[in-house]
Amino acid sequence: MLRPEQNALVTESGPQTPMGDVFRRYWIPTLLAEELPEPDCPPVRVTLLSERLLAFRDSEGRLGLISEFCAHRRVSLWFGRNEEGGIRCPYHGWKYDVTGQCVDVPSEPKESGFCETVKLAGYPLVEKGGVLWAYLGPKEAQPPLPEFEWMALPESRRYVSKRFQECNYLQAMEGGIDASHVSFLHSGELHTDPLHRNTKGAEYQKDTKPKYEIHESAGGLLIGARRNADPGNYYWRITQWIMPWYTMVPPYGDNALNSHAWVPVDDTNCFAWTITYHPTRDLTEEELSAMRDGKGIHANLIPGSFRTVANRANDYFMDRAAQKSGRLYSGVAGIAMQDASLQESMGPVVDRSLERLVSTDDAIIKARQRLLRAAKALQTEGQAPAGVEPVCHRVRSATFVLPVDQEYHKARADAFVAKEGVPHTSI
Amino acid sequence: MLRPEQNALVTESGPQTPMGDVFRRYWIPTLLAEELPEPDCPPVRVTLLSERLLAFRDSEGRLGLISEFCAHRRVSLWFGRNEEGGIRCPYHGWKYDVTGQCVDVPSEPKESGFCETVKLAGYPLVEKGGVLWAYLGPKEAQPPLPEFEWMALPESRRYVSKRFQECNYLQAMEGGIDASHVSFLHSGELHTDPLHRNTKGAEYQKDTKPKYEIHESAGGLLIGARRNADPGNYYWRITQWIMPWYTMVPPYGDNALNSHAWVPVDDTNCFAWTITYHPTRDLTEEELSAMRDGKGIHANLIPGSFRTVANRANDYFMDRAAQKSGRLYSGVAGIAMQDASLQESMGPVVDRSLERLVSTDDAIIKARQRLLRAAKALQTEGQAPAGVEPVCHRVRSATFVLPVDQEYHKARADAFVAKEGVPHTSI
Amino acid sequence: MLRPEQNALVTESGPQTPMGDVFRRYWIPTLLAEELPEPDCPPVRVTLLSERLLAFRDSEGRLGLISEFCAHRRVSLWFGRNEEGGIRCPYHGWKYDVTGQCVDVPSEPKESGFCETVKLAGYPLVEKGGVLWAYLGPKEAQPPLPEFEWMALPESRRYVSKRFQECNYLQAMEGGIDASHVSFLHSGELHTDPLHRNTKGAEYQKDTKPKYEIHESAGGLLIGARRNADPGNYYWRITQWIMPWYTMVPPYGDNALNSHAWVPVDDTNCFAWTITYHPTRDLTEEELSAMRDGKGIHANLIPGSFRTVANRANDYFMDRAAQKSGRLYSGVAGIAMQDASLQESMGPVVDRSLERLVSTDDAIIKARQRLLRAAKALQTEGQAPAGVEPVCHRVRSATFVLPVDQEYHKARADAFVAKEGVPHTSI
Repeated sequence: MLRPEQNALVTESGPQTPMGDVFRRYWIPTLLAEELPEPDCPPVRVTLLSERLLAFRDSEGRLGLISEFCAHRRVSLWFGRNEEGGIRCPYHGWKYDVTGQCVDVPSEPKESGFCETVKLAGYPLVEKGGVLWAYLGPKEAQPPLPEFEWMALPESRRYVSKRFQECNYLQAMEGGIDASHVSFLHSGELHTDPLHRNTKGAEYQKDTKPKYEIHESAGGLLIGARRNADPGNYYWRITQWIMPWYTMVPPYGDNALNSHAWVPVDDTNCFAWTITYHPTRDLTEEELSAMRDGKGIHANLIPGSFRTVANRANDYFMDRAAQKSGRLYSGVAGIAMQDASLQESMGPVVDRSLERLVSTDDAIIKARQRLLRAAKALQTEGQAPAGVEPVCHRVRSATFVLPVDQEYHKARADAFVAKEGVPHTSI
Repeated sequence: MLRPEQNALVTESGPQTPMGDVFRRYWIPTLLAEELPEPDCPPVRVTLLSERLLAFRDSEGRLGLISEFCAHRRVSLWFGRNEEGGIRCPYHGWKYDVTGQCVDVPSEPKESGFCETVKLAGYPLVEKGGVLWAYLGPKEAQPPLPEFEWMALPESRRYVSKRFQECNYLQAMEGGIDASHVSFLHSGELHTDPLHRNTKGAEYQKDTKPKYEIHESAGGLLIGARRNADPGNYYWRITQWIMPWYTMVPPYGDNALNSHAWVPVDDTNCFAWTITYHPTRDLTEEELSAMRDGKGIHANLIPGSFRTVANRANDYFMDRAAQKSGRLYSGVAGIAMQDASLQESMGPVVDRSLERLVSTDDAIIKARQRLLRAAKALQTEGQAPAGVEPVCHRVRSATFVLPVDQEYHKARADAFVAKEGVPHTSI
Repeated sequence: MLRPEQNALVTESGPQTPMGDVFRRYWIPTLLAEELPEPDCPPVRVTLLSERLLAFRDSEGRLGLISEFCAHRRVSLWFGRNEEGGIRCPYHGWKYDVTGQCVDVPSEPKESGFCETVKLAGYPLVEKGGVLWAYLGPKEAQPPLPEFEWMALPESRRYVSKRFQECNYLQAMEGGIDASHVSFLHSGELHTDPLHRNTKGAEYQKDTKPKYEIHESAGGLLIGARRNADPGNYYWRITQWIMPWYTMVPPYGDNALNSHAWVPVDDTNCFAWTITYHPTRDLTEEELSAMRDGKGIHANLIPGSFRTVANRANDYFMDRAAQKSGRLYSGVAGIAMQDASLQESMGPVVDRSLERLVSTDDAIIKARQRLLRAAKALQTEGQAPAGVEPVCHRVRSATFVLPVDQEYHKARADAFVAKEGVPHTSI
């Protein structure tokens, strides 16, 4: 439960908001690299943390993320001509480079120096791991680029997708750190989805009453869920939450790892990023084909958009017969849309002053607290939030069996570290 | 004319509004029985008096109307599994019975007693007369179920439909107590509609200047409209208005009786319920077929919804040629859509401070006053409103001819009482 | 740049706004004559300066523009019967003549005099030049009808169209007085559009850095743009701006003249009127056919509406390949949609406190100032705005070559006056 003012604080991320200031200290996954495939390709409109921006790749291949609107008369530069080292407003020909610096005002004499005084908001945009990352914060606080394990893997070992979701980022992200819903909402998928092939873990996971043990990590939280395994042993599933919005799903056997980022578009919409990757082998054609078909935790998209085919307007193709038979627990198909349907049903921003949390919501409670603490620490002491250092990103989720008397975060600390060439820990 | 604050008072019915409190003292027609046809069938989302609710029928066939949102994390229970005596939230498996009582929280030990402390708002929902009735008020004030005549008739003698209308309930209901518009707006239908077959009454009704005599009844108003009949006689058409939103159309000869309920969904939308019934004979196949085709005062619906095929977005298929020829007085086809088109054209909530009422609006004025008085009496003295007792429902509209010196409400008091097996009074 | 309160002042035109009061002193182009083609034809809903009105032509062919809503119960008279000298509300038969005067209330005795007390807002609506003009201001201030040159020409010499645009009138109108954007945004069209056939002027216009000289005229502004022509000579293009929202495009050779009116529907929508006319010859079949196809500065409309086929919802059919090749400078086809796309991209009402104006925006600055001055003069001194007298309308735009030492507005004052039978001045 959050008081209404706490709820506003943790969910609002526009300019000059405390949480927005926190988010502006991180590199933010903004576009798929394929959205800006080549020099002088069409620019892309981006709304990020409630800012309306334009991303483009200039003639030399440089990337930029600048204000969407021309400084002159506020025309959208999306209509602009991307050519010869910048984007040119089609109205009167003002031209901007990738930093937002105006480099040409045709009507004004060069020697007047006017052009140099015109500068749009401009943010660094950098390609890494198939994703374009933006940094919207103060220059002096800019951290190194993220180093999530999947970013350094060969392309053949990862698959990245994103989908637009019509609700605040937080209630979407809370689904990612809420291990306890899997045994209900996704129970049908644990044994049928090609990306969750039958494993010992999936068997253990039928126990719908796991116990949770949560520990703070350098960059976020280690969320351990334990179930009974063989006598004297627990089956542990460890989710990683990394500030401010990354989640890593505990793996199943040798299946690929899965990770999410839940990025605010504005206060009532977000992008759900999904990364599936394997540290030591290429993804199989079967896996890739399934993901392209919206299987696993990916989703089927309306061509030419990042909107999902199943969506609120069509009630996510609710299938009451499949719900009745148990084939689909909620009647909605696909893990991604199962989550999205429920999260969107909570409304654009759920009123957390009305919720009734229980012990299994501990991870959610602790994540919110950590976000709220970070906002306060930045606001009052200027303290940079956790999770900006790359060391926080080089982690893994894991599943394993341990004797009941061992503490998982100490006994298997090795399992949480991403090491090149070393397989992930999973049963 | 109403002052703006009076207009707000009489049109707003959400929780904690004075008029909303009045409406919460009545049983409310909420769903067609066929919308919840069998045990464990799909639940139905209901918005009623601005409350978002979920109606469902459990495994034993019990009916419930509960808050739409799970107490835990505010997910819509419309996605829930309706099985084994309750509806189970698909997110974490919390389960509710038809009263809104939580009966299972899988993550919490039964012995903790936590589950018992969780209770959603839940309202009684009862099937009677082919309709599911809800009561949203205080338990101690709950009246007996309504006893409208059609509710006790065999199914073969009644036909019930409902349609969604995009305006406040009051301007819709005012159409139902506004006898004087019939000779204009519906003049074309009086002689062509299969459910208004030529009668003596329809002939008399061509007089567009009736005089009105209105009397308070136990549950509302008797609205008498008189026209000249044969010398020395008046032709009387008596409409019933029963608190808070029922209207009964004066009949034509032996044709079936027609009644409406105008039920607020929220402050800018309502459901128009229409009940056609005959006290002493089955409805004919011709009548039923016409009503299924949207004739009479029923409407053509978009399949799978309660939205009308003709609607605001398509200008109700305005037919200027038919308007010109006089075949359709307003150019809109069908009595229901003739009313709905004009009522919706007034805007979501008409500004009654701008209207110019005349003597023929007396019934409207008196109904508003009675509603406003009821709100005040409940608010200041806790007095229950009129029309909650079933005796108020066992009434009929009527048409008859009387000598000019007789008072209709005394001379033909018998005609207004619904008596089993006794035909209605109509010419 | 305007301060936010100035921006509000100059962009808001509803009842009781200072700029709205100014606009209500002019005759306003409201409908194409063909929209009310004959006596008793269907009425047309009109929103003008944020007022919801109904235009109709009565049985005698008289035109009226009255409040959309019946005085009685506020039903839209668009559903009314237009017959026998007035429009009759279909609800209870109240009838209004073209002045808004109620002429029949069927339920009330004629001798009661009630009917005479009922009067809707009603404004004069007059046909001239193929356009229906409305006057929404005080009776005593009503000016003579406009006398734009095209209004008096035979129909065969003019072509009038209008299209709905989703933004405030001012940012649309600013495009019409912004000569400097033509060499950029419309550069592709200057040589390919059938209505801008290759002319000497179009050659000179390739110079993208014209100098501007602006002079106040009786009714608005003379906006002169000069470019180098042959040695010792300037090529001049003179745009006319006539208060409050008329613009006249400088011509190309013997091609037809083009004029616009930018009329507020409400504060976030406007109608862009386009008039193409030739003072001394009929428009050719080639020209007419091109305009009907949405060429020139006209646009392709969705049949049965004044909405454009290319619009915001479909990104104006942005063609990146044509943009890249230079065939379409901004990637949007058609001069009208090139302007509309950019103007709508600025948002419903652009925030002028954020803009960065330069010397080429002088005409825009001066037009805003003149509008703001007019609002102040009317508000504080009751002074009628400029441009209401017909003499202000009998003007022309022009293009010509002049020796560099001559002042265009003095040397070629003749070119700016519309004289019957005299060709326009254009190279």
